[in-house]
Amino acid sequence: MSSQTKRAHNFSAGPAALPYEVLLKVKEDLPDYHGQGVSIMEMSHRGAVFAEVFERAEFRLRALMGISDDYEVLFLQGGAQTQFALLPMNLVQPNKPMAYLETGHWSKLAIKEAEKLGSVRVVASGAEHKFTSIPAFESWDLSGDLSYLHITPNETIHGVEFHQLPSVSSDIPLIGDMSSTILSRPIDVNQYGVIYAGAQKNIGPAGVTLVIIRKDLLERSPAQLPNMLNYRSHAAKGSMYNTPPTFAIYLSGLVFEWLEAQGGLEAMAATNAVKAATLYKCIDESSLFNNPVVKQDRSWMNVPFTLADSALEARFLSEAAERKLVGLKGHKSIGGMRASLYNAVSQASVGALVDFMVDFEKNL
Amino acid sequence: MSSQTKRAHNFSAGPAALPYEVLLKVKEDLPDYHGQGVSIMEMSHRGAVFAEVFERAEFRLRALMGISDDYEVLFLQGGAQTQFALLPMNLVQPNKPMAYLETGHWSKLAIKEAEKLGSVRVVASGAEHKFTSIPAFESWDLSGDLSYLHITPNETIHGVEFHQLPSVSSDIPLIGDMSSTILSRPIDVNQYGVIYAGAQKNIGPAGVTLVIIRKDLLERSPAQLPNMLNYRSHAAKGSMYNTPPTFAIYLSGLVFEWLEAQGGLEAMAATNAVKAATLYKCIDESSLFNNPVVKQDRSWMNVPFTLADSALEARFLSEAAERKLVGLKGHKSIGGMRASLYNAVSQASVGALVDFMVDFEKNL
Repeated sequence: MSSQTKRAHNFSAGPAALPYEVLLKVKEDLPDYHGQGVSIMEMSHRGAVFAEVFERAEFRLRALMGISDDYEVLFLQGGAQTQFALLPMNLVQPNKPMAYLETGHWSKLAIKEAEKLGSVRVVASGAEHKFTSIPAFESWDLSGDLSYLHITPNETIHGVEFHQLPSVSSDIPLIGDMSSTILSRPIDVNQYGVIYAGAQKNIGPAGVTLVIIRKDLLERSPAQLPNMLNYRSHAAKGSMYNTPPTFAIYLSGLVFEWLEAQGGLEAMAATNAVKAATLYKCIDESSLFNNPVVKQDRSWMNVPFTLADSALEARFLSEAAERKLVGLKGHKSIGGMRASLYNAVSQASVGALVDFMVDFEKNL
Repeated sequence: MSSQTKRAHNFSAGPAALPYEVLLKVKEDLPDYHGQGVSIMEMSHRGAVFAEVFERAEFRLRALMGISDDYEVLFLQGGAQTQFALLPMNLVQPNKPMAYLETGHWSKLAIKEAEKLGSVRVVASGAEHKFTSIPAFESWDLSGDLSYLHITPNETIHGVEFHQLPSVSSDIPLIGDMSSTILSRPIDVNQYGVIYAGAQKNIGPAGVTLVIIRKDLLERSPAQLPNMLNYRSHAAKGSMYNTPPTFAIYLSGLVFEWLEAQGGLEAMAATNAVKAATLYKCIDESSLFNNPVVKQDRSWMNVPFTLADSALEARFLSEAAERKLVGLKGHKSIGGMRASLYNAVSQASVGALVDFMVDFEKNL
């Protein structure tokens, strides 16, 4: 029976580990959803049963994150990279550059897409330090009128994260690509104009994208934008302008319920801080492993690390797999290893990883 | 146990019935996918395990539909309505109108979106006949140079379907929105430049969109298009420009496997023709029920019908529900009833519906 296979310690960067209890609930809900005679995937998104699933998911997310009625919560498709295009298409204003902070791979891509669609200013860049730190706030060029300021609060590949948000003038809508940090800790949503995130790290399965947008910004969307690329159209129809990804939204709702049961985002933050500290301590105490990020900007969610001898990487991965430690290969753009420590990765899994790393170094 | 609930006869227009065997397979594959220690939703889309799932899905689809190497098969997101925008954005050419045939609700929407993005010619319209027939081919205005010709081979709401494709000059790429008819019968893919379809009718769960595009057309995509809106970018990366909706693709692959086991599209066509004939016969023999579509253009997949006295609709739906016949309410835009008879709806379910309709009329 496949269900008796030992569960792996899953450090995948995304699609990533989901809470085991949520997977069991999904299994239990198949093939019949709550006595409906059909599964959750086989019913109209406009019917009463799915409407309740959807409303509960949004309600729980609003409660978890403290999202006020000043914001729309949209469940869209296409991943965060589709938002790299939709943000400029919807929010750019005449003669006001779009400002971007460059902190790693993902913000670079966001900048490249925005440059196709309007005038972009890179307000500061971590490139000269190989993206091992967040540029100091004092160095950001925020002069003049700006359409918005885009930041990437956590860079999934380079493993740098904002642990404190600089206070940006409220005249400049702050946009955060939170794909790999959302729900990992409490944040003040009111500091943002837009928060967006692909689901496949801390929300649910790949295929749904969250966009939390302050309602006044919806007025910026040009009327001539195609409806599917227009935030205002989606908001006007409560994310049901067309058929939403119903299964992915249902499963995300189960993850939100699980987060509540864990004690909400304060509790997740406490656990996540311990998980990250455990792994960074192991790396810093080792002479084999290295993480290049300055300590105050190290990510809680994504921990890239290298081996002093890169020829050992294949052996590291294969011995890790023998201990059921999976998803540790680094992103192809920078190589090395990476352990992603999203909400569904337990302290026990981090412990197993650290035990293995210590043993691996000892046995060389 | 929810899994012991009697399975409903599901006539939902979409998200729609999936093959029961597929749902059981999905259940079996949770929480552990084939001894991997993680579910199919929790692994990298670039890893070997998911790569095989993806390749098998594409291979099976190509075999089922007879798709040659002249075509790319893309698994995208956003539903068919996102394609209403992407088609013009990628394929319009200077001084060549985009031609659309107007046959009902969905082609009307496709036209509205295209009009935002370039010059559109409606080559013929079924509007004056309230979309109860496909305009005769002789009446289509295909003069001059055209960027492409867009048709909707099956209109999900109005229930009209092409049963033969007119032979359009090969100079004009033919584009078909096949959301509600794809895989219901064999078609000659080579007659098309682009075939696209939202999954949630005959392919899989909502959240994946199929685009089958002739490779020469990829050259039309403007370089300045954002990558996520650009067919060429998606094709260059084999649908993995970003994280695809992995679970929806996995499940679609299981549906393709199921279709093979049923005998492929010839077998589906034979069954679908009988299913449709059974229901239309019941409607035509009744003095209570009516379908307005001219016989030669009636859809195999979506059968809208009205009751002579619309005040009986609520009673019809509630008595149907007592017999586990669900998803029969018509689309809000035209009202009445609608039975969708997609591949996963069995002849037995159609029989149960017809038995009910006969009894309902008798007992009035």
